[in-house]
Amino acid sequence: MNELSFIEKILAEASDRARTGYANRADVEITSKCHRNDLLTAVDLAIQDLLIQRINDAWPGDFVVAEERDFSKMPSTAPERAWVIDPIDGTHNFVRGLLPAFGISIAFARDGRAVAGGIMLPMMDKLFLGESGAGATCNGQEQRVSEIDEAAVARVEVDFAGPPERAETVSRFGRIILGAGQVRCNCSTVVSLCSIAAGEMDAFLHVSLNPWDYAAGRLFVEEAGGKSSRLDGSPLGLFDGGRGVLITNGLIHEEILALLEA
Amino acid sequence: MNELSFIEKILAEASDRARTGYANRADVEITSKCHRNDLLTAVDLAIQDLLIQRINDAWPGDFVVAEERDFSKMPSTAPERAWVIDPIDGTHNFVRGLLPAFGISIAFARDGRAVAGGIMLPMMDKLFLGESGAGATCNGQEQRVSEIDEAAVARVEVDFAGPPERAETVSRFGRIILGAGQVRCNCSTVVSLCSIAAGEMDAFLHVSLNPWDYAAGRLFVEEAGGKSSRLDGSPLGLFDGGRGVLITNGLIHEEILALLEA
Repeated sequence: MNELSFIEKILAEASDRARTGYANRADVEITSKCHRNDLLTAVDLAIQDLLIQRINDAWPGDFVVAEERDFSKMPSTAPERAWVIDPIDGTHNFVRGLLPAFGISIAFARDGRAVAGGIMLPMMDKLFLGESGAGATCNGQEQRVSEIDEAAVARVEVDFAGPPERAETVSRFGRIILGAGQVRCNCSTVVSLCSIAAGEMDAFLHVSLNPWDYAAGRLFVEEAGGKSSRLDGSPLGLFDGGRGVLITNGLIHEEILALLEA
Repeated sequence: MNELSFIEKILAEASDRARTGYANRADVEITSKCHRNDLLTAVDLAIQDLLIQRINDAWPGDFVVAEERDFSKMPSTAPERAWVIDPIDGTHNFVRGLLPAFGISIAFARDGRAVAGGIMLPMMDKLFLGESGAGATCNGQEQRVSEIDEAAVARVEVDFAGPPERAETVSRFGRIILGAGQVRCNCSTVVSLCSIAAGEMDAFLHVSLNPWDYAAGRLFVEEAGGKSSRLDGSPLGLFDGGRGVLITNGLIHEEILALLEA
């Protein structure tokens, strides 16, 4: 079994766990992390534990980076083999419901570059898979970014993030917020990046992301013809210690970069 | 058959039409209305035609206000009996997919006040129904607003609207955008108002709405314990010619009013 097939297999298992957790979310134990708007549930932890256990069993010795608990430490140099996991991206949406904008993300990286990835959107029954150089699919169908070539008619996901990053978000992205065709904010990076790969969204901006947020989704966008960078236009690395992220359909990448405030 | 049962019946019919249209959305004819970001599809028109025909057949002589074509003219005085329809709220989301945040809204108003309403969220299989004084339900379950009592931890839907209203949105709602616990923007008023009635969202703001956007959803929120007003705190009428709308769980209504810029 190669890495991609393995990702597909463990995502199915994690997705069952997420669906059960979502159905019973009124009873799920919730704690806060850094601040009151940063939630963590017992389901995030259970899914992370499950995924890490499966990876350790199948690929002992591989490096694992994951959002919760002690796994969030970045490697000082890019490991030859690393797994980058977000057990639930969009925990707030998971907890509060109606629009179930959350997903489970797994990427496998070689020498600091994601080469295989999977994202499951459990409540929408969408499985995105991608492999470097071999394209990205959703439920088996090849994905392609949109052909929107102008920010004034583009659908742009501005992630307003939590209160600690809000002022920076408004100030750096002010001209995009004013000028984009459509401003959206679902606050699940993985849903947004899948949307861009699927041609249903045109750009995504965030002032401060961790690699588990974008490792798999960025791979899909690029395989579907899109582009990614830091907010200054420099390359977006997984373990480069950077913060801001711009991911687009490619056609409006330069225009959006030019509209960002330093 | 009373008005509420009638609403439930025609929503089921309209919802089938919406689901078929959504499944075939790649082939749906799309036109723009006032500006390039304001879309109209053949499905909006077909659903509106269907609903108006059913209303005319069942309740001849009733006044009808609806978003598209010649039905968007407001009555100069509140009619004794009026139907207020949005065939698809969230047309952009309908057209572009993935997060299917759109809904069909019907309200029945007596003397300018909504007394019965229904909203169907077709891709989420959620039917909200409400009657003045008798509560609001989702798929038969009684709805109740959240108990969040502080904007700093509230989930607030700031509808960034289209480019023509964007500058006003950013300027009037600037302090909320900076200070709310969570900022969301799905750009479907009916989805947001159902979310507030369901306790999954805490406040909704828009600088310029028409009555078909909020007629049914506002009824649900109030029946579920929430509150509505214009942005200056004055009463929110259906046919009063006003523009801005604030709808909340009630507990944070005054706090948010105080944070708005004139």
